[in-house]
Amino acid sequence: MGPRSIGIGMIGYQFMGKAHSHAYRDLPFYFGQDPYPAMKAIAGRDGRRVAEAAQRMGWDSYETDWRVLLERADIDVIDICTPNASHAEIAIAAAEAGKHILCEKPLALNASEAWTVLEAVRKAGVIHMICHNYRFAPAVLLAKKLITEGKLGRIYHLRATYLQDWLADPFAPYSWRMSKAVSGSGAHGDLASHSVDLARFLLGEIRAVSGLLPRFVSERPDPDGNPVQVDVDDASIFMAEFACGAAGTFEATRYAGGNRNGNRFEINGERGSLRWDMEKMNQLEVYFADDPAEVQGFRSVSCTENCHPYGGTYWPAGHIIGYEHTFIHVMHELVQGIERRVNPEPNFGDGLRNQLVLDAVEESSTTRQWVDVQDVEGMILSGSSEDK
Amino acid sequence: MGPRSIGIGMIGYQFMGKAHSHAYRDLPFYFGQDPYPAMKAIAGRDGRRVAEAAQRMGWDSYETDWRVLLERADIDVIDICTPNASHAEIAIAAAEAGKHILCEKPLALNASEAWTVLEAVRKAGVIHMICHNYRFAPAVLLAKKLITEGKLGRIYHLRATYLQDWLADPFAPYSWRMSKAVSGSGAHGDLASHSVDLARFLLGEIRAVSGLLPRFVSERPDPDGNPVQVDVDDASIFMAEFACGAAGTFEATRYAGGNRNGNRFEINGERGSLRWDMEKMNQLEVYFADDPAEVQGFRSVSCTENCHPYGGTYWPAGHIIGYEHTFIHVMHELVQGIERRVNPEPNFGDGLRNQLVLDAVEESSTTRQWVDVQDVEGMILSGSSEDK
Amino acid sequence: MGPRSIGIGMIGYQFMGKAHSHAYRDLPFYFGQDPYPAMKAIAGRDGRRVAEAAQRMGWDSYETDWRVLLERADIDVIDICTPNASHAEIAIAAAEAGKHILCEKPLALNASEAWTVLEAVRKAGVIHMICHNYRFAPAVLLAKKLITEGKLGRIYHLRATYLQDWLADPFAPYSWRMSKAVSGSGAHGDLASHSVDLARFLLGEIRAVSGLLPRFVSERPDPDGNPVQVDVDDASIFMAEFACGAAGTFEATRYAGGNRNGNRFEINGERGSLRWDMEKMNQLEVYFADDPAEVQGFRSVSCTENCHPYGGTYWPAGHIIGYEHTFIHVMHELVQGIERRVNPEPNFGDGLRNQLVLDAVEESSTTRQWVDVQDVEGMILSGSSEDK
Amino acid sequence: MGPRSIGIGMIGYQFMGKAHSHAYRDLPFYFGQDPYPAMKAIAGRDGRRVAEAAQRMGWDSYETDWRVLLERADIDVIDICTPNASHAEIAIAAAEAGKHILCEKPLALNASEAWTVLEAVRKAGVIHMICHNYRFAPAVLLAKKLITEGKLGRIYHLRATYLQDWLADPFAPYSWRMSKAVSGSGAHGDLASHSVDLARFLLGEIRAVSGLLPRFVSERPDPDGNPVQVDVDDASIFMAEFACGAAGTFEATRYAGGNRNGNRFEINGERGSLRWDMEKMNQLEVYFADDPAEVQGFRSVSCTENCHPYGGTYWPAGHIIGYEHTFIHVMHELVQGIERRVNPEPNFGDGLRNQLVLDAVEESSTTRQWVDVQDVEGMILSGSSEDK
Repeated sequence: MGPRSIGIGMIGYQFMGKAHSHAYRDLPFYFGQDPYPAMKAIAGRDGRRVAEAAQRMGWDSYETDWRVLLERADIDVIDICTPNASHAEIAIAAAEAGKHILCEKPLALNASEAWTVLEAVRKAGVIHMICHNYRFAPAVLLAKKLITEGKLGRIYHLRATYLQDWLADPFAPYSWRMSKAVSGSGAHGDLASHSVDLARFLLGEIRAVSGLLPRFVSERPDPDGNPVQVDVDDASIFMAEFACGAAGTFEATRYAGGNRNGNRFEINGERGSLRWDMEKMNQLEVYFADDPAEVQGFRSVSCTENCHPYGGTYWPAGHIIGYEHTFIHVMHELVQGIERRVNPEPNFGDGLRNQLVLDAVEESSTTRQWVDVQDVEGMILSGSSEDK
Repeated sequence: MGPRSIGIGMIGYQFMGKAHSHAYRDLPFYFGQDPYPAMKAIAGRDGRRVAEAAQRMGWDSYETDWRVLLERADIDVIDICTPNASHAEIAIAAAEAGKHILCEKPLALNASEAWTVLEAVRKAGVIHMICHNYRFAPAVLLAKKLITEGKLGRIYHLRATYLQDWLADPFAPYSWRMSKAVSGSGAHGDLASHSVDLARFLLGEIRAVSGLLPRFVSERPDPDGNPVQVDVDDASIFMAEFACGAAGTFEATRYAGGNRNGNRFEINGERGSLRWDMEKMNQLEVYFADDPAEVQGFRSVSCTENCHPYGGTYWPAGHIIGYEHTFIHVMHELVQGIERRVNPEPNFGDGLRNQLVLDAVEESSTTRQWVDVQDVEGMILSGSSEDK
Repeated sequence: MGPRSIGIGMIGYQFMGKAHSHAYRDLPFYFGQDPYPAMKAIAGRDGRRVAEAAQRMGWDSYETDWRVLLERADIDVIDICTPNASHAEIAIAAAEAGKHILCEKPLALNASEAWTVLEAVRKAGVIHMICHNYRFAPAVLLAKKLITEGKLGRIYHLRATYLQDWLADPFAPYSWRMSKAVSGSGAHGDLASHSVDLARFLLGEIRAVSGLLPRFVSERPDPDGNPVQVDVDDASIFMAEFACGAAGTFEATRYAGGNRNGNRFEINGERGSLRWDMEKMNQLEVYFADDPAEVQGFRSVSCTENCHPYGGTYWPAGHIIGYEHTFIHVMHELVQGIERRVNPEPNFGDGLRNQLVLDAVEESSTTRQWVDVQDVEGMILSGSSEDK
Repeated sequence: MGPRSIGIGMIGYQFMGKAHSHAYRDLPFYFGQDPYPAMKAIAGRDGRRVAEAAQRMGWDSYETDWRVLLERADIDVIDICTPNASHAEIAIAAAEAGKHILCEKPLALNASEAWTVLEAVRKAGVIHMICHNYRFAPAVLLAKKLITEGKLGRIYHLRATYLQDWLADPFAPYSWRMSKAVSGSGAHGDLASHSVDLARFLLGEIRAVSGLLPRFVSERPDPDGNPVQVDVDDASIFMAEFACGAAGTFEATRYAGGNRNGNRFEINGERGSLRWDMEKMNQLEVYFADDPAEVQGFRSVSCTENCHPYGGTYWPAGHIIGYEHTFIHVMHELVQGIERRVNPEPNFGDGLRNQLVLDAVEESSTTRQWVDVQDVEGMILSGSSEDK
């Protein structure tokens, strides 16, 4: 008898589809095969292109109608890698079909929609996870561990930036990512959402926000050179008050020249501080106020030791891993969650909570006032403790 | 006939008094003696201590009543290094006595008071300067030059932090810097004021702000161990809209463990970006989007070449200067301004404008809304162009 | 008809076997399947363990006698991942069996043995490659491109270090890596060999060397705590004169605390300089003397753009790759070489030349004199141009 | 009665003369005036220029014959800032005149000459010091303290580089620094001498060396564009064995583009490591192997705290000092040495020992063999312990 498997059906096959496919392929090599994700099928509308993608990325089959995946008995998990606007519809249908779900972020276009999705999976009793992969960088997991153990004491500050630069050129071409109808928002949902998830993971819930969503360039050329209106934000900037008492600052943008994928944070606490930068993702900078005075300073820790999160899984110390490994960890948590019948984190509860923060920032940017983040406990009548 | 001199009378002799004294002493060595600042007298209330300070720091004489300095014919400039609450009173008296004035920041405790001071110096026709020394780091001056020359194109973002950590320990002792009556504010006036001045220097005026002034520790022990109430902010966090269209974020705090004097900024424009950190003050990180694609990246420029601001004044390239040199540059600008009868920058007009921004942040932190920065042009009826 | 494949048989399955296996698995996902490496079989002496390894790493079958692999018609390539002492014997046998060969470094225990191996593959006309994976970091390939294009002008200096720290503790346990009989040498063959290969790749041949091979700890405890003699070097330090006129310094050690895998180099030329560090392998630091004087400085280039070597293969700019990707590139070059019937580089000619340098350093460390690196052109009568 | 003073007479007034002058002026401001160095006179051959220099740098008088300084009763210390070739002659004359001596490095053009000078000062019983200013960077002094306290355990490695780039351009003009007759050597005596002094300060004596002194550009244009022969080294590269058992590497050059004043070292010991870079001179990177495994890493320590060497002398933590402050510390040690009648370190004994190492490297570069550093204890019959 061969190793047990969990059948995966994935919808969408662009950037995220590639990252997910690779992770499914690579997972058993590093984490073993009992069980392993079986790459059963992908779905996409264009038959020729989806066939090519299935072959290239190693999927057993393909479908041109994603609903067929829901009917296939060999598929246990629906992995949603489609554009944002379709996440909710697919997730609800998958839940109703009794499939476990991995959904790319954002869970939905707004909190209300996200709540509907969360209700659907809770009702169906399926395992659900949202793909905030950056939580799973070993350095981020070490940060979480140090905070949880109290090594930083009470937290005063978090400052998070997610800086990209592919729109700094005002003549860069128009794309669907600049359309509110398709994307929901710009840097806000695309980048700031990751920072919000990391912040909640590390410090807990956000109570109130005040935000600014500037648009620097209001029209961009289409492929024919004709101007198209941009109707999303170019950057997302906000201040936040955490339930724990910490004060947060967030800035996400696509206009920060020289920052290719600058997903970063610094956290300051009573007894220490942490710094992380996704472009140097294997390092965590750690400061302890309890060090002897003459040798205090930020330490640059290479989170590649056996003692580190996922340590020993890959290579000897100092032999770094990259972006794609964060997705392998997501898939590992997903498979473990299904195996043990426990929802992994981040799940759709986190998807909802992240969205509530993002929605509050949007509201704040319109009212020009601080906005309280809505209480999810109120939204989910029967309590959220089961979701975790 | 010896070199000409400009007589200086300084009031206050603590941290800033030390920095100013050293700069006066050192200035002629590097910048020549025609004219040079003659260290005529310092004033302080405690006769024994002010006598000792005068002797130690090289002043010719001392007074125990600062008003005597205003009467002395050998004194051309009054340098105000006293606690914040007394700046306005002394500055107005000095102006009325026809003395030129160098005032430590802040110019006053609020914009209204600052305006009165500005009116006084304008009426008296004396030269006035405010001591925002960080403008004069060569790397900051290079940043200014690159922006002015259009090397960055249109500016999208400024993010400024001024991070210190001497209060991160909740049991650190109480000091007068935590008293609103004495200091006016906490990190806000002490640290954020520097960031505001740098931001205005580099990007121009700020139009509106939304701010948060958290207090993390509400009482601290006095020398006898008795708790004293803290009534100033512990941190100053705000978002800003610049007149030029850029979006700014500011964060100043005394609770960021591991950051001893982290006065930093990053600026992102259409064609390039800049980064600076006072703790590595000789370096400017520069990014140009016009570099060939394969070799784009932030350059670490050692601003110690002959071609750099104040280049050739000190040592060969790569031989770094430090904090105290920024004050030498302030004194150089002051002396040059007096010599040429032109107000240097930053002057009391900047002091007022900086204060208007800080006041708006304070108001915003109370109303929990965005606040427009008051228009100084309206305040100063006859226009501000003469102040520059 | 499915995609064409090249059958791989691998001998050894420890650290390098894992890295190679993963690369074979991952290659077609990123580089396509025409042809792709088919993981036919691995060989190892311990039946139970090799069976488990084959299953875990995805090999179709296994053998307990490596010679069987040479007889299998489904195997086109023999991949040698065994301890150093057996490389030559296996390589010669594989060549005689008409198999293409990928051999882990070092090619042999000394240059004489390496020559024999090179003669064998040349006689057999098989494709051969040596697995110096670090050549294939995109940043290293960019370095090569910039040098080749003359962007650095004449080269003056190369300084290479390969710093590890797992033996800094004098009580770290004894292992076979400290046995001359098994490993041939210590840090010299293990780490300095990589630096020599990179140096030759980037600057060309080394003419003469003077070296020092210190041993800091002469005995270490075995698992029972009994002392065992160490008879290899602990560090390898040498100076080198390149044929191009550059002066080189090399230092490899296992005793440099805090350096986990510090494979680094800096190269200085007439018109520019380069710096690289494997622990930040996606970055190349680039300096151009032709930049305007006021903005000269090392640039930190993220070699993750589409325009960079292997650009566009993985993820968007700034999404970093890791150690394992260097092996994917090795396998890609190998497969391309077999497909096009052209020996890839580095091949066994490089293996020999690298060994000649290492041998000269060893001789120098004994004679305490500079030693000329032996001329491989003399060794290989018919010239080496065919090897490249 | 005013503060006591020590009369200084300085010979030479170029780069080093400027650095020394500034330090004398600044010393009492920071370190007090009991006693203080009184800037009595400088000497130089060109009357007009020396007069101008005296006035500009704050000396009371000048002489056009340095021998006059030796006769002046108001001068206690002769400070030698002349070109290298004249150091020995002046020092011997100064000693014979009973003057204390501060000599710029190198002490002499070779060890034999240096020995003669050392004998002269020992016979005269005067205080003597050699101006290796880099020892006195607070971060270097912290490094010394940590090593002395055993925090690093046994030392395995030191790697020192002193990289400059002002000759990387092969058409840079000829100067006296490229003349053996005037300078003695090139990068070897100018830059490597500093690294040797730092190495000896931190690790103790060097036993044997093997060196390479390449010349990359053999002629350069004079001001009229005519070629002049260069007859000094362009770089100094050597390996070293320390008496303590450590292995050292040294590289000094003027051809390392992008390195303006890259005076750096890394030291690796049994229990920790240190890194320092003069261009970031306020920072010491410190690694401790005894840190918990999950948070090991190099710490970046800002050596600006009150607890650090010379801490509290200047500014609050994080407010950096620069190159010129290392000279203030030299002058402080000199004055303290004179006051307490104890030779400071580094003194002429160090000057001799440094020269013995440099001479051995030069010999080695000619013989192409390792050379033992001559034993200074043998040279100085009565032992060197008195010199320290």
